Amino acid sequence: MESEAMPRNNGWIKKITPRLIPPSLNDNTADADRLLRGIRSDLKGEAVSADFPLIKRLPSILREYDFNVSAVVYQKDAGWHLMDVFGPAAPDIYGLALDLGSSTLVLRLLDLSTGKTRDEISFDNPQIKIGSDILTRIHYAGQKEGLSELQGMLVDRLNRKIEELAQRHHIETRFITGMSVAGNTTMTHLFLGLDPYYLCREPYIPVVNRLDLLKAGDLGLSINPGAPVLIFPNVGSYFGGDLIAGILASGMTRSEETAFLVDVGTNAEVVIGNQDWLMACAGAAGPALEGGVADMGMMAGPGVIDRVIIDPDTLESSVGTIEGQAAHTVEHPEGPVGICGSGLIDLAAQLFMTGMIDLRGKFVPEKCGDRLMDVDGIRHLMVVGPEDSGTGEALTLSQTDIDGLIRSKAAMYTILTTISNTVGIPFRDIDRFYVAGTFGSYIDPRSAITIGMIPDLPLKTYVSLGNTSLKGAGRALLDARAKEEIFTLRDRITYLELNVNQEFMNLFSAAKFLPHTDRSLFPSVERQAE
Amino acid sequence: MESEAMPRNNGWIKKITPRLIPPSLNDNTADADRLLRGIRSDLKGEAVSADFPLIKRLPSILREYDFNVSAVVYQKDAGWHLMDVFGPAAPDIYGLALDLGSSTLVLRLLDLSTGKTRDEISFDNPQIKIGSDILTRIHYAGQKEGLSELQGMLVDRLNRKIEELAQRHHIETRFITGMSVAGNTTMTHLFLGLDPYYLCREPYIPVVNRLDLLKAGDLGLSINPGAPVLIFPNVGSYFGGDLIAGILASGMTRSEETAFLVDVGTNAEVVIGNQDWLMACAGAAGPALEGGVADMGMMAGPGVIDRVIIDPDTLESSVGTIEGQAAHTVEHPEGPVGICGSGLIDLAAQLFMTGMIDLRGKFVPEKCGDRLMDVDGIRHLMVVGPEDSGTGEALTLSQTDIDGLIRSKAAMYTILTTISNTVGIPFRDIDRFYVAGTFGSYIDPRSAITIGMIPDLPLKTYVSLGNTSLKGAGRALLDARAKEEIFTLRDRITYLELNVNQEFMNLFSAAKFLPHTDRSLFPSVERQAE
Repeated sequence: MESEAMPRNNGWIKKITPRLIPPSLNDNTADADRLLRGIRSDLKGEAVSADFPLIKRLPSILREYDFNVSAVVYQKDAGWHLMDVFGPAAPDIYGLALDLGSSTLVLRLLDLSTGKTRDEISFDNPQIKIGSDILTRIHYAGQKEGLSELQGMLVDRLNRKIEELAQRHHIETRFITGMSVAGNTTMTHLFLGLDPYYLCREPYIPVVNRLDLLKAGDLGLSINPGAPVLIFPNVGSYFGGDLIAGILASGMTRSEETAFLVDVGTNAEVVIGNQDWLMACAGAAGPALEGGVADMGMMAGPGVIDRVIIDPDTLESSVGTIEGQAAHTVEHPEGPVGICGSGLIDLAAQLFMTGMIDLRGKFVPEKCGDRLMDVDGIRHLMVVGPEDSGTGEALTLSQTDIDGLIRSKAAMYTILTTISNTVGIPFRDIDRFYVAGTFGSYIDPRSAITIGMIPDLPLKTYVSLGNTSLKGAGRALLDARAKEEIFTLRDRITYLELNVNQEFMNLFSAAKFLPHTDRSLFPSVERQAE
Repeated sequence: MESEAMPRNNGWIKKITPRLIPPSLNDNTADADRLLRGIRSDLKGEAVSADFPLIKRLPSILREYDFNVSAVVYQKDAGWHLMDVFGPAAPDIYGLALDLGSSTLVLRLLDLSTGKTRDEISFDNPQIKIGSDILTRIHYAGQKEGLSELQGMLVDRLNRKIEELAQRHHIETRFITGMSVAGNTTMTHLFLGLDPYYLCREPYIPVVNRLDLLKAGDLGLSINPGAPVLIFPNVGSYFGGDLIAGILASGMTRSEETAFLVDVGTNAEVVIGNQDWLMACAGAAGPALEGGVADMGMMAGPGVIDRVIIDPDTLESSVGTIEGQAAHTVEHPEGPVGICGSGLIDLAAQLFMTGMIDLRGKFVPEKCGDRLMDVDGIRHLMVVGPEDSGTGEALTLSQTDIDGLIRSKAAMYTILTTISNTVGIPFRDIDRFYVAGTFGSYIDPRSAITIGMIPDLPLKTYVSLGNTSLKGAGRALLDARAKEEIFTLRDRITYLELNVNQEFMNLFSAAKFLPHTDRSLFPSVERQAE
């Protein structure tokens, strides 16, 4: 497990053991006031509040433990809030960071005392049963009981996984005393039971962008019911808390250097900025990059091709598959079963470099030879033969697949160009280019540059950050400053509405070549085939 | 109805009509953020929070009224909190102030826009069914379901009375958007469902003294469930929120003049202070002053004697009864039915002045003549003959009654002396002597001085304030500064624990004479009989 130990004096959820003097005739202050006074003195005089139901329980709790108790408190508004009171020998407290993806949820268990990651599990979003794309779910939410059904299935699954984690580590769930949730705007709505109806209708209005801390019990989560739940704020319908978490995880707002942060998926979400300013935009990049449309395309997973090398001399391809398995060659009996977005980018780059596709991405029959075939009038290139594939059938790449990929990469490059033009900072002045998201972490920047998807910057400029949504969620759960920062950085973001006007279309058309109509933009791409 | 219109710019519960610009592609902020932004701008930029359940309802409310809404907000912590959202034509909002007495509850309906009192009703505390004295109720609360039963009967009765008030004034209860509650510490516990077990056991510990604002819905009150409920803080078990309300109502903390505030009942609760300091104490005064023990004693009510004059020449007594009825003479066919505490004080003073009782309060047979009789070896004075009384039987005063009264008045005077000695301020330096409580408002200070219950100060020093618990509750509901003040003044109170030591007993013994062993303390008491 990755460790992200933080300096624990920044924690905003703490277990403390206040020193309480038991009541006497000389000091007959009330139970609640006595406890809060003790806690306040532990917290250097900062204000402490408590909820009424807990106050009701105090007389018996305090006397059960002879006024030797431990208390879990969290920062709220300008002070602290008492969450729960336990005996003096209460164990460590834990927290959960959740990456609330449309397809996959990742749940990280953190020790709130040390800041260390204890475990992490990832599982399918059960709402996929209703619809794998988000619009289907929004539509379903509009039906009778649809929204509460969608919320319920999510919370139920989550609770089962929380139980699983807790049992595995012998933790009572009442000692899980905090949670943070980073998801896109729609998923956040569906998780909270907020009506997503107006999210997908002009002018695309969320119910809420910034929420105060919620309570786990109010959301039906089976951790301590008083545990604060931090919901990452949205910027708008198309720019959600997952990206705020990404910005946080990148650290770009704490640096003088200007950086790009790009989350590649069905939407391309792009942030540019530094400690002084931030601009963001999001645009449809098409599903090609997620492997959603190619005949052999699929989500990243075991046996899925994520690396392709084509020998420039023999034009033989060798592929690598993901999930820590040793790279399979095409000879390997347990062959690959499909290709994911990053494999597709590699493949396209290799096809282009070896001249098997041309500047427009069209297959070059002279180069492809008998691996090219015609199916229903569309050309297909056999990438893995039936005898070598894990499915028993050939894995092929069609002209349509390549055309889709080129539209996606052109959209990405156009969005990057547009935002760069808008802020007046040319690509060469970008110090860092962060690639966010699990999918992005598989992309080889060299290949992405080769097809002209991203700018031709020195490779060291590109930094893959992995699951930034989860990382950001974890950080904000552990660190009070990070928790504040997600709201301040959210407010600092200037959102650039992408106007698909003539200028955008011109840029887009120019970017639909490999790597670009303007070759001077990609000096590093030296094609052997030329 | 008494009017207490306040300058309404001090209100802490307000209805406002924020100007909202409907969403557009140029301004696609979320519904909740848009509404809160509009409200914030109405409130001069102060922070505004909202509860999650209300946020969930916003999309439909805002669109139902085309973004022309009114909002009810209240001050909370350092900012404002959104309580509810209505259409643009929502009516005025109302609040309730509650005097939560052990015997009687008084509920005042206030217009929160104008500050005016609209109505007021008083009714028995339904917990009397369980026990008229508070210890019986505390004991009952310890039985299974006892506490929730006690709370439930109170809340049910209150809700019926709230409905009654609302119907009478054609107000929907959702437009009752605030409440304040002042009661003694035990009643406050029983109202809130807080376990009173430790209140009456050494060292006498309340569950809580200071509460943040609660929500009406959480207490089962049938007004707007989001309405804030302000609970007056306690100082301790024996000094409750009703007295904090009294201090507020007296205004003594806003004056340079040093004042006494005395609430007379089974307990004598005494506060002394001014704008710079406050000291309080409470001590058992005995039930005599409430008319609880005398043979003919009873609570103030129709037909109950509250005024007595004895003709010094004929020694004939004439009595007055309360509740606005014309004074009945003993000849009147609808005769009196009993005597309340203030009547008893008057009677004792008149008996003393006419020489019918001596310095020790003993009947003087030569003066009393044939009105004195012996019942079971105890002397009784016939005050109203059977032919003149409303009960058909003679109303008599026994030696035991007088002895009880003398102990009570001696306790009161001793408590006043003790606290005055403690702060080092002699009675002559007291500028105001406020008498709080409904009972206190009937006491004639001249008579109370005559029997040596209160210091011999100029009569204009004495000011009867009536139901200060209700007045204070009303003020704190209407005025933000008053609401803050109850917590700051509570913290400023130094509570004097009365030690019943030898010195106290000496003072007490000296005060058990009429008016006192030291006649120089009561120069104004000139007895005709001497």
